Amino acid sequence: MNWRARLLALDGMMPALDDTGRLAWGTLADAPEDAELVFLGFDAGENGGGRACFAAVPPQGDPRPRMANPQLWNLMAALSPEDLALYGGARSLVDWHARHRFCPACGGPTRIAKGGWQRDCVAESGGCGAQQFPRTDPVTIMLVEHDGRLMLGRGLGWPEGRFSALAGFVEPGESIEEAVAREVLEESGVRVRDVSYVASQPWPFPSQLMIGCHAHAESDAVTVDETELAEIRWFTRDEVSAALAGTPDAPFTAPPPHAIAHHLLEWWIAE
Amino acid sequence: MNWRARLLALDGMMPALDDTGRLAWGTLADAPEDAELVFLGFDAGENGGGRACFAAVPPQGDPRPRMANPQLWNLMAALSPEDLALYGGARSLVDWHARHRFCPACGGPTRIAKGGWQRDCVAESGGCGAQQFPRTDPVTIMLVEHDGRLMLGRGLGWPEGRFSALAGFVEPGESIEEAVAREVLEESGVRVRDVSYVASQPWPFPSQLMIGCHAHAESDAVTVDETELAEIRWFTRDEVSAALAGTPDAPFTAPPPHAIAHHLLEWWIAE
Ligand SMILES: [Zn+2]
Ligand SMILES: [Zn+2]
Repeated sequence: MNWRARLLALDGMMPALDDTGRLAWGTLADAPEDAELVFLGFDAGENGGGRACFAAVPPQGDPRPRMANPQLWNLMAALSPEDLALYGGARSLVDWHARHRFCPACGGPTRIAKGGWQRDCVAESGGCGAQQFPRTDPVTIMLVEHDGRLMLGRGLGWPEGRFSALAGFVEPGESIEEAVAREVLEESGVRVRDVSYVASQPWPFPSQLMIGCHAHAESDAVTVDETELAEIRWFTRDEVSAALAGTPDAPFTAPPPHAIAHHLLEWWIAE
Repeated sequence: MNWRARLLALDGMMPALDDTGRLAWGTLADAPEDAELVFLGFDAGENGGGRACFAAVPPQGDPRPRMANPQLWNLMAALSPEDLALYGGARSLVDWHARHRFCPACGGPTRIAKGGWQRDCVAESGGCGAQQFPRTDPVTIMLVEHDGRLMLGRGLGWPEGRFSALAGFVEPGESIEEAVAREVLEESGVRVRDVSYVASQPWPFPSQLMIGCHAHAESDAVTVDETELAEIRWFTRDEVSAALAGTPDAPFTAPPPHAIAHHLLEWWIAE
């Protein structure tokens, strides 16, 4: 056991907190004997020397990796930005390892390599030797504006009154700008122009790179794709401001502060 | 056979061209009987009706998916922008399918689903039922500027005199801006500030989303990571202009016009 190393405490895929509300850490001795360890980097350390930080790959990945359960959502909202970034990166990595124990090219077993930033198909046990790398999936999320109003959507199954920016995965062969235009057209029937980049943020369900953009709509006549969205509405600046402030008469519920959609709405109001 | 459908002609993973230099197409009857077909979308069509476009998954994926061989590089440079985008998207998809015939979660066989935008682990033959989706890997590529000069690097194994922008994969848990700063620090030892987005482009080796950025360097004192790069140099605007123009006395060879690095250099000169 290396006393200069520490192990992120996880309960399955959930973060464990210490009594100051920060991420809890243990030692490498806390990991199950046969657990695969992922190297997360060095922390700032005490007395000038950084400690190596690890997380153990759990037996099972997240069965519904694209969703945050309400308990996790609340925990994440309470974490500091540094802890949120560290937990998010660690969660994405260990979940990917747990769900990639076999080689997609030949079906043989894989093993962790390069400190957890790679998995190798085991050639000695008859595998093909292919290497796999953790995924990061780019997703565009966009503020679409027309005549001073903003298009926001309510997802299927979302509570009444909760709205956010439209979003969708970038597909192979697309630029960011093409992905924004295609996704808005598919979900709302609206054509956009002048797509511009605003900000980005990682999102660990399971490992998205959220790419926030702004675009101008050619028209405000929407045709909702009912397989994707329950509802689309246009909101004025005053309405978006009220939602961000959480005033009792706000016309909708805004996304929480740790979601990039919240940041994008604040950017639009400040702009 | 559907006469309104057409099949992209591929020679392994290489594009086949007709005698006008455009991508060649056949009919669905040209596909091997047991080939998996990927739906690429509808073309503009003749007489107003679009035809469904498909590509067949080859028996083998690309054994070195991160490299374009010189013959393919030349073919790609000759394609129209529309054909280049179509070939790139199709290549990324069929290569992904060819290299994902097994389930990474349980090792069981997978089959194509949703027209080629998904693979399913076959539960009826004992698989776990997991779904897999084609990858798109975000990569940052960055113009790093200091005092009016631009940092460019020469990769290991590149010809003498060929330089391009530094680039690297976005890792789980990073924003685009964080990935740019980490990658430049790792490869050159230089700290950057004021990272801004410039443009994006898909790149089918095997399925990157290239995200072009600009950043300011705190210093021009570089420490080359010799495991990644052969050389780093700083170039003036005049030197970059000469390289883009391909003049005989240009101090370096610029990336080709269909690479995003070329577009970024042109943006920097025009700016
Ligand atoms: Zn294998
Ligand atoms: Zn499976």
